[in-house]
Amino acid sequence: MGSERLRPAVGTGRRGGFTAALLRYSGRMDDPPIDILLCGDWGAAEDAAWRDALQAAMPETRWLSLAAARADPARVQAAVVANPPPGSLQGLPALRLIQSLWAGVDRLLADPTLPPQVPLARMVDPLMNAAMAQTALWAVLSLHRGFFDYARRQGEGRWHAHAQTRAEDIRVLVLGLGQMGLAAARAIAGLGYPVSGWTRQPRTVTGAVAVDVAALSGETALRAQLAQTDIVVNLLPLTPATRGLLDQRFFAALPAGASIVNLARGAHVVDADLLAALDTGHLRHAVLDVFTTEPLPAGHPFWAHPRVTMLPHAAALSDVRSAAHAAVANLRAALAGGAVAHRVDRGAAY
Amino acid sequence: MGSERLRPAVGTGRRGGFTAALLRYSGRMDDPPIDILLCGDWGAAEDAAWRDALQAAMPETRWLSLAAARADPARVQAAVVANPPPGSLQGLPALRLIQSLWAGVDRLLADPTLPPQVPLARMVDPLMNAAMAQTALWAVLSLHRGFFDYARRQGEGRWHAHAQTRAEDIRVLVLGLGQMGLAAARAIAGLGYPVSGWTRQPRTVTGAVAVDVAALSGETALRAQLAQTDIVVNLLPLTPATRGLLDQRFFAALPAGASIVNLARGAHVVDADLLAALDTGHLRHAVLDVFTTEPLPAGHPFWAHPRVTMLPHAAALSDVRSAAHAAVANLRAALAGGAVAHRVDRGAAY
Repeated sequence: MGSERLRPAVGTGRRGGFTAALLRYSGRMDDPPIDILLCGDWGAAEDAAWRDALQAAMPETRWLSLAAARADPARVQAAVVANPPPGSLQGLPALRLIQSLWAGVDRLLADPTLPPQVPLARMVDPLMNAAMAQTALWAVLSLHRGFFDYARRQGEGRWHAHAQTRAEDIRVLVLGLGQMGLAAARAIAGLGYPVSGWTRQPRTVTGAVAVDVAALSGETALRAQLAQTDIVVNLLPLTPATRGLLDQRFFAALPAGASIVNLARGAHVVDADLLAALDTGHLRHAVLDVFTTEPLPAGHPFWAHPRVTMLPHAAALSDVRSAAHAAVANLRAALAGGAVAHRVDRGAAY
Repeated sequence: MGSERLRPAVGTGRRGGFTAALLRYSGRMDDPPIDILLCGDWGAAEDAAWRDALQAAMPETRWLSLAAARADPARVQAAVVANPPPGSLQGLPALRLIQSLWAGVDRLLADPTLPPQVPLARMVDPLMNAAMAQTALWAVLSLHRGFFDYARRQGEGRWHAHAQTRAEDIRVLVLGLGQMGLAAARAIAGLGYPVSGWTRQPRTVTGAVAVDVAALSGETALRAQLAQTDIVVNLLPLTPATRGLLDQRFFAALPAGASIVNLARGAHVVDADLLAALDTGHLRHAVLDVFTTEPLPAGHPFWAHPRVTMLPHAAALSDVRSAAHAAVANLRAALAGGAVAHRVDRGAAY
């Protein structure tokens, strides 16, 4: 990876060989660095961790805070962001890429000042996909085997083993077959659960999937599949078309005793409808990582609901090391005038 | 599977073709049934479920209660048992097989009246192996990702995401590489955890394993491996050689912050030593399915310990349907004078 430590041939659209690059590096020690805005809704320790990882992956770069970028906005060539404050990305005339460090870009797209002509890329981090698959599989295993019930009984001092069912009898539906949905579907199917996957629009799941996941699309197929589903795992992007998808009508289409795992966005779920379906017992349990307001406000019924297991938006965090490498690969491509990976389709909103 | 509903040619060592068997069945409607003792430490519903499943799998048999067997002991040709009361299996002169419905036979072997010359077989049920793999993987995922901590924080109304580690950095050691240990090791390795497996005696793990599990054996290798282990999953048989293996010395050999998952037998663990290691914080957490006394007595420190997650001996139950088929296959083999599968080595005690 020696070449990663060298300055790329910015703007030429090609990279020199190792020797040429080494000579160029030696000859340009006094060149001004590349200025990139780094801005996230995080604390100082997290900011430092990302800055260090990005600096190590792309040493020829100066990583600017929002204030530093504002001091000389014409020099800022790209932005690496994690839910930056609205307005952060306007007035930067040389901006060539906005690279999100998070997979979901719904909050970025909600900023009306986001420059429409600048390419915007989602983070696709293999380590984050693996973490999401772990959480999805843990939730499915917990629901299938009743481990949340055992935890409650331990608290009550009650010894009672319930009947055991087979994985092959627990039907799982994964909503969304993006990188994270596919990783989750693969892991769940790997333990013997029959898994279906649903996307809003028809899409081809490539042969590389190598897993027995029945792919469905469209509203009609969704309603039909819900009637044959025991556990729903939501990993859809949040778009105007998917907001509020998990509502009263959705829950009513599930068989009694089904469970919900929401690992995507809080706004996919209509909270009041979910609480009603849990309170009547139609839904057995909900595992929720994401909420309409985060942190979930004190006193919200989810906190103490016996049928709700909560995570604090921690199902899958970007891995600093691997995400920094993915971001830098995209930055180098954009600064060299090439195509970027995982570019957001502004029309589809993901 | 039509032939399974027909009476086998008992004692001939071979089975007739379909037509011959059908004729023979028609011709022997008045033959006395085969008498087999069915006896477990279970309630009426569970007794009925096993009786029905066994009757369906071997219709030519009369499944006798302990009282019925005692009424005409010379007719009892085999026994299908699940921790029967001590003394149940003595005085049955025609007994040709004792088939356990449970995988562990330590309680059976502790009965001094167990007839020493009668073959004794453990239950090996693929569905039970799968259930054990599910529980082991759930425990590893929960410990790795801190899901037990999140549950505690939910109870406290506290929103706090901790740092995320990679599966490849969590070293798992599976003690015991029998059918259940191997199933667990495979499932855990399948999610990307580095897995080692340990057996007391050297053994060859067959090529069919097809999983990257480093197999170790012996005391010295165990001590060395413990120092490099984050999560121990115990699936050893309980024998005089493994009783109390998880003691103060064992825990001290683990790095600080390691965790224990005991899915085998309570007597593998020295409870006082485990509690001490949890209380000092040397061990981070213990997931315990099995206990020296079951049900675990009220007031035992495990019930309310913040670092203990308990299951009521429910990590893997025999699946009635598949275990009945496995038991009947062994009964047919024994009654036909053939070799039985998974016969217990009385010297090794498993």
